[in-house]
Amino acid sequence: VIDHPSPDNLPSAARVNGDRLWSRLMDMAEIGATQAGGSNRQALSDDDQAGRELFLEWATSAGCHATTDKVGNLFVTRPGRSNDDPPVVLGSHLDTQPTGGRFDGVYGVLGALEVVESLNDRNIETPVPLQIAVWTNEEGSRFPVSMMGSAVWAGSLDLAEVLCLRDTEGISVGTELDRLGWVGEAPFGHPMAAYIELHIEQGPILEASSDPIGVVTGVQGLRWYTISFAGSPAHAGPTPMDVRQDPARALASALQSIYGVAADHGPWARATPAQFRSFPVSPNTVPAEISFSLDLRHPDSQTLDSMDRAVTAVVSEAARTHQCGSAITVDNYSAPVDFDAGLVSMIEAAANGCGFPNQRIVSGAGHDACYVATKAPTAMIFVPCENGLSHNEAESISALDAQRGADVLLGTALKVFDELA
Amino acid sequence: VIDHPSPDNLPSAARVNGDRLWSRLMDMAEIGATQAGGSNRQALSDDDQAGRELFLEWATSAGCHATTDKVGNLFVTRPGRSNDDPPVVLGSHLDTQPTGGRFDGVYGVLGALEVVESLNDRNIETPVPLQIAVWTNEEGSRFPVSMMGSAVWAGSLDLAEVLCLRDTEGISVGTELDRLGWVGEAPFGHPMAAYIELHIEQGPILEASSDPIGVVTGVQGLRWYTISFAGSPAHAGPTPMDVRQDPARALASALQSIYGVAADHGPWARATPAQFRSFPVSPNTVPAEISFSLDLRHPDSQTLDSMDRAVTAVVSEAARTHQCGSAITVDNYSAPVDFDAGLVSMIEAAANGCGFPNQRIVSGAGHDACYVATKAPTAMIFVPCENGLSHNEAESISALDAQRGADVLLGTALKVFDELA
Repeated sequence: VIDHPSPDNLPSAARVNGDRLWSRLMDMAEIGATQAGGSNRQALSDDDQAGRELFLEWATSAGCHATTDKVGNLFVTRPGRSNDDPPVVLGSHLDTQPTGGRFDGVYGVLGALEVVESLNDRNIETPVPLQIAVWTNEEGSRFPVSMMGSAVWAGSLDLAEVLCLRDTEGISVGTELDRLGWVGEAPFGHPMAAYIELHIEQGPILEASSDPIGVVTGVQGLRWYTISFAGSPAHAGPTPMDVRQDPARALASALQSIYGVAADHGPWARATPAQFRSFPVSPNTVPAEISFSLDLRHPDSQTLDSMDRAVTAVVSEAARTHQCGSAITVDNYSAPVDFDAGLVSMIEAAANGCGFPNQRIVSGAGHDACYVATKAPTAMIFVPCENGLSHNEAESISALDAQRGADVLLGTALKVFDELA
Repeated sequence: VIDHPSPDNLPSAARVNGDRLWSRLMDMAEIGATQAGGSNRQALSDDDQAGRELFLEWATSAGCHATTDKVGNLFVTRPGRSNDDPPVVLGSHLDTQPTGGRFDGVYGVLGALEVVESLNDRNIETPVPLQIAVWTNEEGSRFPVSMMGSAVWAGSLDLAEVLCLRDTEGISVGTELDRLGWVGEAPFGHPMAAYIELHIEQGPILEASSDPIGVVTGVQGLRWYTISFAGSPAHAGPTPMDVRQDPARALASALQSIYGVAADHGPWARATPAQFRSFPVSPNTVPAEISFSLDLRHPDSQTLDSMDRAVTAVVSEAARTHQCGSAITVDNYSAPVDFDAGLVSMIEAAANGCGFPNQRIVSGAGHDACYVATKAPTAMIFVPCENGLSHNEAESISALDAQRGADVLLGTALKVFDELA
């Protein structure tokens, strides 16, 4: 090992092999390829298995050894100088949406593999191991819990419950894990020196500002609600407008106010009303009830709480103004995640070191990094995707941006190793 | 016949027997009675048949003779001095909604019968016959065309098409008409000197103003639309508010404007948005599309056209403002009906003659009178119903109002006969 250069002797802006990375991204996309150019490798399917096998073939050739835990999370390790110390972990997921793209998740795993290859190419020995995590069922499309593997690993979800989750055909997670031979002995929540996840942005911000790198400072918190207004059903003809208790009036007023609440809480606030329904389904009756879902997001917990209070107030006010009843139920709450400040700074420094324009950004979508962040210093790197499109077969990134993101991942990993040396 | 008083010798405010009327309303309600106190005598069912048989028993005892036409409309005639001249016709329907009330339709038929009985009680011979029309399938709940019998009678619907209409069990109108023996030889569109329909208001206006009598001047025209806004589906988290094409924003804005259009077109304008739907049904995706139905009504044809233009404009404007697409389809159009001015004045005079506070009113709901009005001088009399409730088992009117409405029907009929004498 004596002739291996140590990371601190490397140029601060070492680069990965972008062609190899792109070629592997394209090869992986052939597994479960869809006619429209995307990928369909749903969690714990034969294609998900085939994707892992291809990845393992590459990783094993690169000198890594693999383990899995009881929920099938796959950890691939490139040994370091001291293998008793916690590894630096890079990763994401290989499963896709049924009509998924070629990059969501996959890019983070193959970007991590490219870091391994780049260290190999330079004969770099790291002070502690470098590990690639491939989390099970991040998408939650076949088995309806997203970020399933990382949540179980972090102790946020119960293994026994998760094993009983079934797909629409009645097949359980446990059955599929056994069938595919994914159950291993790796412990949940094992120590990590750091966890860095490279991912496509899945939004339009980087593309709009022409920054190839997003330094992700955290993940928005979210609150999901079901909001309903109750009116008094009445005949659309005889009933004068001014005596109606029309929930569509309350709806119109509440929607306007909800968008106002989002505007009042700054550029990071998000409000998404959806799932509109009304009853009875009759064209000539003032509806008895109208309901819709509301997805509120903000990266700051107190601001999200303030949005929650404001929305509750405007819904009541809209109902009162139009003599309707109202109800709000909270269907889901996920607290904002703040990534590790030191790691965020290192990502920023790595991007600057490569000379890549970058901006700090908050993830609007959830990622495995959210759960890992509860156990280890964590941060994420984003690259732009075309038109912000994701969960879509047309999902697209440029080969140059793919390379740049992996360059920053490599640079950041080298900085972390530097600190650990 | 020589000792019969002629109508012009009668007191101008002859009264019906309110107890008999109420008792018959309650007896009829027992046929197809529902647990919640309403009636279920759907068109061309055994209970509809039983209702007609009870009515015919009373009408025959009162000296009337019955005929039907090829769509089962029942005409019961009390002969007059000259039976070659067109009759004065009173009537409505005996079929109900599945969870119908005791008065919708029934009141107009039994009120007409009460006029016959009152003429009999006073030995009055009329110059022309008095006829009671019982129209087939006014409700359109079992067989999905409302005002079916009167529409065929008036030539607005084709008999052959109507005979092929099927209920949800696949049974056709033609099959049921044959089974029940309702097919007769009476001609469609036979001449009528006048047609007067007594009905519950099915709205809250008379109750609110404490007027026991509504002098119905016409029926609102209606336009039914399906309106949709198309946006661009996007992830609820990463997508900034200001780059979204969110159809819920267009919806909120359009709804506000639509209520504004109704307000701008005066107290008789009605706008009822209903049947809200959105796609995809996902809480964390900006909807690709939101649609709703809109029911617009106004008694004046030009005003209804103006509302149509205004709604078309505000929908386009809402879509343009929020960078969405929009589509409007017209699903139904029914022109406003103006009742016969002379007959309307006679109803008003009859109500005033009885000393009953009254107001001119426009029907928001459709009635058999709409179709009859295309063939004969027509008008309607309304009485208040509790809370404006109808098409509901809790539908309720007071016995006093029931009597007053029938008094006005009698008084109006006497005035018409007076003119014909």
